[in-house]
Amino acid sequence: MSTLSPTPRSTLTRKKDRAATDRQALYDVLDEALICHLGLVLNGSPVVLPTGYGRDGDTLYFHGSTGAGNLRAAATGIDVCVTVTLLDGLVYARSLNNHSMNYRSAVVHGQARLVTDPEEKMHGLKVVTEHLTPGSWQHARAVNPKEFASVSVLAIGLEEASVKIRSGGPGEEPEDVDATGVWAGVVPVQTTFGAPVPADYVPADFPVPPHVSRARGR
Amino acid sequence: MSTLSPTPRSTLTRKKDRAATDRQALYDVLDEALICHLGLVLNGSPVVLPTGYGRDGDTLYFHGSTGAGNLRAAATGIDVCVTVTLLDGLVYARSLNNHSMNYRSAVVHGQARLVTDPEEKMHGLKVVTEHLTPGSWQHARAVNPKEFASVSVLAIGLEEASVKIRSGGPGEEPEDVDATGVWAGVVPVQTTFGAPVPADYVPADFPVPPHVSRARGR
Repeated sequence: MSTLSPTPRSTLTRKKDRAATDRQALYDVLDEALICHLGLVLNGSPVVLPTGYGRDGDTLYFHGSTGAGNLRAAATGIDVCVTVTLLDGLVYARSLNNHSMNYRSAVVHGQARLVTDPEEKMHGLKVVTEHLTPGSWQHARAVNPKEFASVSVLAIGLEEASVKIRSGGPGEEPEDVDATGVWAGVVPVQTTFGAPVPADYVPADFPVPPHVSRARGR
Repeated sequence: MSTLSPTPRSTLTRKKDRAATDRQALYDVLDEALICHLGLVLNGSPVVLPTGYGRDGDTLYFHGSTGAGNLRAAATGIDVCVTVTLLDGLVYARSLNNHSMNYRSAVVHGQARLVTDPEEKMHGLKVVTEHLTPGSWQHARAVNPKEFASVSVLAIGLEEASVKIRSGGPGEEPEDVDATGVWAGVVPVQTTFGAPVPADYVPADFPVPPHVSRARGR
């Protein structure tokens, strides 16, 4: 299996036992999460914004209005950091100090490329759409030329990335394992989907299409 | 009600109608979310990492090992950006271009202060613990002096912050509202908690304490 090639900034300095080094672990985190947090430096200060994305092979795609300042800045080829986090559990230990979280996170470093080729740009829009709302690309009205011109698509390669995973029960000091009177364990955390709520202009007898109802089970 | 005082970097440049300007909206987002994404600049590049936190009034507290590189860097007083996002829904429009997300996000800009006063440091640990695992401060074994020395606590003031909220149904072009054959609406997204899983060294007859079972309903 292809491995992640570490660079100094993608090598974990702490809790190295939580590092996953195969590329499939990276794909799994990126494909399961719904949104990412995109970080960049604007006027010397870090800015972190929640953003949609999608993955195709070793490329992440993003889209946004051509007027969005953060996307305009990212498109100039400055360094960006894309972080995706899945929170899996609250970890209760017998000591406060060993309380923790179960999570899977991916951190991608790179430089965003503004996608200018029309064919790749349309493909990038599809990848982002199908990540968050799979099936919509086929079902909904296509992007028209005016809409196509008003949106920017960025691409970031998955060359420099790290994955960190914590799972399982609490770590404890030996004296705490033998102690009594304190509960310890994990409360699982999940992302769940509610029943689809149709827009008020959708006829009452219009069935919820399978690609929407399926979204709940993923 | 106290308002958020905008600065250039905390003033939204896009979708200004999604800006919430009262301080309570900021508190609500920070108090409901479980983790944040902390951004800072390391060796000239942005780094974004998922982190626990807690709020006390207009102060955010963070903790981590004294060996953690990002916390060490943040403690030197460099600019940081703390972003908290609650994803509330997937928005399906009749046009691909109007597909969206419902969310609430808070972005806090500031400089982290290393908490050195022992009393405030212990208080910061309590605030962070009680945010993610409310009730544990009272229930679990207290932090001992060695553990206390091995952890760093940082504080960031909520002076410069913005809140962005999107809610409700899809926005549509007029021609799409009158169209038929395409479903539109919202699939709600929620964070839910599973049944607590005791650690294997916890006696089978040890009841799950109320502060743990309560966590599921929040």
